[in-house]
Amino acid sequence: MKTVLITGFEPFEGARINPSWEAARQLNERMIGGVKVVARQLPCVFGTSLEVLEQAIDELDPVLVIAVALAGGRTDISVERVAINIDDARIADNAGNQPIDKPIIAAGPAAYFSTLPIKAIISAIREAGIPASVSQTAGTFVCNHVMYGLLHRLRRRKARAGLIHIPCSPEQAIERPGTPSMSQASVVLALEMAISIALTVEKDICLEGGATH
Amino acid sequence: MKTVLITGFEPFEGARINPSWEAARQLNERMIGGVKVVARQLPCVFGTSLEVLEQAIDELDPVLVIAVALAGGRTDISVERVAINIDDARIADNAGNQPIDKPIIAAGPAAYFSTLPIKAIISAIREAGIPASVSQTAGTFVCNHVMYGLLHRLRRRKARAGLIHIPCSPEQAIERPGTPSMSQASVVLALEMAISIALTVEKDICLEGGATH
Amino acid sequence: MKTVLITGFEPFEGARINPSWEAARQLNERMIGGVKVVARQLPCVFGTSLEVLEQAIDELDPVLVIAVALAGGRTDISVERVAINIDDARIADNAGNQPIDKPIIAAGPAAYFSTLPIKAIISAIREAGIPASVSQTAGTFVCNHVMYGLLHRLRRRKARAGLIHIPCSPEQAIERPGTPSMSQASVVLALEMAISIALTVEKDICLEGGATH
Amino acid sequence: MKTVLITGFEPFEGARINPSWEAARQLNERMIGGVKVVARQLPCVFGTSLEVLEQAIDELDPVLVIAVALAGGRTDISVERVAINIDDARIADNAGNQPIDKPIIAAGPAAYFSTLPIKAIISAIREAGIPASVSQTAGTFVCNHVMYGLLHRLRRRKARAGLIHIPCSPEQAIERPGTPSMSQASVVLALEMAISIALTVEKDICLEGGATH
Repeated sequence: MKTVLITGFEPFEGARINPSWEAARQLNERMIGGVKVVARQLPCVFGTSLEVLEQAIDELDPVLVIAVALAGGRTDISVERVAINIDDARIADNAGNQPIDKPIIAAGPAAYFSTLPIKAIISAIREAGIPASVSQTAGTFVCNHVMYGLLHRLRRRKARAGLIHIPCSPEQAIERPGTPSMSQASVVLALEMAISIALTVEKDICLEGGATH
Repeated sequence: MKTVLITGFEPFEGARINPSWEAARQLNERMIGGVKVVARQLPCVFGTSLEVLEQAIDELDPVLVIAVALAGGRTDISVERVAINIDDARIADNAGNQPIDKPIIAAGPAAYFSTLPIKAIISAIREAGIPASVSQTAGTFVCNHVMYGLLHRLRRRKARAGLIHIPCSPEQAIERPGTPSMSQASVVLALEMAISIALTVEKDICLEGGATH
Repeated sequence: MKTVLITGFEPFEGARINPSWEAARQLNERMIGGVKVVARQLPCVFGTSLEVLEQAIDELDPVLVIAVALAGGRTDISVERVAINIDDARIADNAGNQPIDKPIIAAGPAAYFSTLPIKAIISAIREAGIPASVSQTAGTFVCNHVMYGLLHRLRRRKARAGLIHIPCSPEQAIERPGTPSMSQASVVLALEMAISIALTVEKDICLEGGATH
Repeated sequence: MKTVLITGFEPFEGARINPSWEAARQLNERMIGGVKVVARQLPCVFGTSLEVLEQAIDELDPVLVIAVALAGGRTDISVERVAINIDDARIADNAGNQPIDKPIIAAGPAAYFSTLPIKAIISAIREAGIPASVSQTAGTFVCNHVMYGLLHRLRRRKARAGLIHIPCSPEQAIERPGTPSMSQASVVLALEMAISIALTVEKDICLEGGATH
C-alpha cells in the first residue's frame, strides 16, 4: 500500500508539548485518497532529526512527505516555499547543539524549493475556512534543517515533500497572552487537505502568495 | 422569565459581516442557568447604537447585559475592564459621524468599570481551552461608546453589564493574511461561559490581569 | 521662578537603564519658555513612587508636571489620555509588591483624564518629524498608578499634568531584536515640545487621535 | 579610482518618497576607506530595475554593490542573507507588472547567499548604537528580484554584493501611527558602516543571527 509520511517535532525551548506532533499523530493510520498516512515524531536536534527522518523514508518509501513544525507567533497555516542550506541557531537544540552559519549539506545547493503544490494547498485550506498563506522562510533552525535535508534526500525521486508551519495551540496561547493560536481540529483538517491536494494536484495553480519583503 | 441581553454589532469599515453579531445571534433564545438569552444587533453608529440598546433594556429588563464587539488584530477573547467618557473616532461610523473628543454623557464621570466579574470570566474561558485576557481599553469608537452608555444607564440598577471584544473570524483572516482569528464555535462557547459566570459568581476572583503599559 | 517638574522612572524588570529617566535628566535645569525644568527620578514601586512625586510637588510647586515612562514595544511617543483607579500588576514592582485589582485612591473616581493639551502636543511633536500618537491606556502598573495619583493630587489646582510613554532605546532594541526603538535625541526633543506646548496652548486643538478598540 | 555602488529604490505603492533612496543619495560621492561611493536610483519595476543596475555595474565596475530597500514594518536595519529565484508579486510594480511564481533567471540556481560579511556588518552597526539584525528572507517582490539578479550577475566576479532593508522613515510613521521607524541619520550611518566593513573584513565573524522559523 502507498504511504504518506507526516512528521511532527518533539517539544523544544522548555515547552511541554509541541502541537505539530499532537496534530500529526491524529493523522496516523488515516486513509486519504487510498493512501495510508504514517506519523512519526522527530527529535528537535540538528543531524539526528534528519537521521530519524531518513530511516522512516527508507522503511516506508512514501509517495509524499510532509514535515510539520510549530511557528510560535504566526497566525495561520503557513506552507513553506523554500529551505536554505544553512544552520544558524538562535537557541540551542534539545541536545545542546547551537551551530552558527554551517551548511546543512557541504556541497549542496544554496536552497531547495518545496515540491508540494503550495498554492493549491493554501487555496484548498482557505476554502475549508481556515487561514493559510505561503511563507518565504522556514528560518535557520531545526525546521529549515529538516526541510532542506528532506528535499536534498528526495532530489532525484518522484516523491513530493515540503514543510508546513502551524501556529501555537490555544493552550500555549493561554500561557502567553497575546500569542495567536489555532485549534487542533483546524490544524488537523488543514493537514488533511494538504495531503489530499499533494496526492492529486499535479501542476500547481497560479495564485498570488508573495511578500514585498 | 429572567433574560440576558447580548448584543453584537452590524458590519463596519466596509466589511460584509461582523463576527460579533454572528456569534451573538447563535445564542438567541438559548437557556443558560435558567435564564433566557435574547440577542440584538446594534448599529455601528454613535448615539443610535445606545438608543437601540436602551430600548431593548426597557423592553426586556435584563438581569445581565453583555455587548460583544469585533477587535480586529486581537488574538483572544478580551474582556474590557473600563469604558471612558469620550468619543474620538479614527474613522466615520456607519452614519458618517466622526466625533472628536466629545463626552458621551455631558455630566458623566470620566469612566465606569465593568460590573462583570471579569477575572472569573477569563478564568472560566481559559479552563475551556480558549485564550482570553483582560483588556485595559475599549478604544474611543462605538464599542467604548456603547459600553460607557450601558454602564451609565444601569449605574443605579442591580443588572450587571460589560463589553467583550472578539478577534476576527477565520473568513476575515483569509482575506487579510497575517490577521489573528478565532473560530465561531470557540467565540460562542466563550460567550456562553461569560454569561454563565456572570449569572452565578457574585464576587470576582483574585487573578492577575494587568498590563505594564 | 516658575518650574516644570518632569519625572522619569528607575529601571525595572531587570533592565540596567530606563530611557525615561535618561531622557528626563537631559532636561534638568533647562529653561523652556522662561520656566525652569526640574527632573526627578521616581522609584518603580507602588505607593513610594507617589510619595516621592508628591514631595517634589510640595517642594517645587510646579506649574506643570509631566511623568515620563517606558512602554517597551510601542513605536512612538505616546501621550496618555486617561489614568484609571486600579492597580493590577502583571509583574512585581521593584519592592516586590504585586497588587491585584486594588484601587489607587479608595474613594477616588474611576478615572482622571490628562489635563495636558494632548492633541496639540502630538501635533507639535509630529511637526518636528517625530512619530507621536494618543494612547488610550497607561496600563495598570506603576505608570498608571503615578498618573492617576498625580492627577488626583492636582485635581483642585491649576497646574497641568499627565504622562508620556516612550519607546525602548536603541540599546535596548539591540539586546532584543525586533523591538521598536527611538533615539534619545528624538525623545528629548519630543519632551521639550510637550513642555513648551503645555505651557502655552490654553485650549487643546481638534485632531483625531482615537482607536477603534 | 575604486568605486562602491549603492542603490536605493524609487517610491512604490503610492508613497511619495522612498527612504532607501533618500539615504543612499546622502552617500553619493562620499569617500569611505579610500573608495568612492556612487549612488543610483532603481525603478521599482521587475526587469527594468536589473537593467538599470547592470548598466551601472558596467559603467562603474564597482568593487562592492549594496542595494538598499524599504521594508515597511521592520524595526531595524536588516541585512539580507539570501535571495531566491522567484518573482511572486503581492502588488503590481510601478509598471503594472505582477508576475506570479516566475523564475528570475530561467536556468539559475534556487538561491544565492549574500556575499557581504553580514554578521560583521550587523555587529559594527550595533556597536554604533543602531539596531540591526540578519533577515532570512528578502520577500519575493522587486527587492529580492534585484538581489538575486545582482548576485547572479556577479557570481564569477570578486566584487561583493548584497541587499540591506531599512525601516520606514519617521515621516512615513507619522502618516501611519504604529509603524516602527528609524531616523535618516541612523540609516545613513548604518550604511556607511556596512560599506566600510564590506571593504575591509575579509572573512565574516561567527555571531548568532538565526531565526527559529
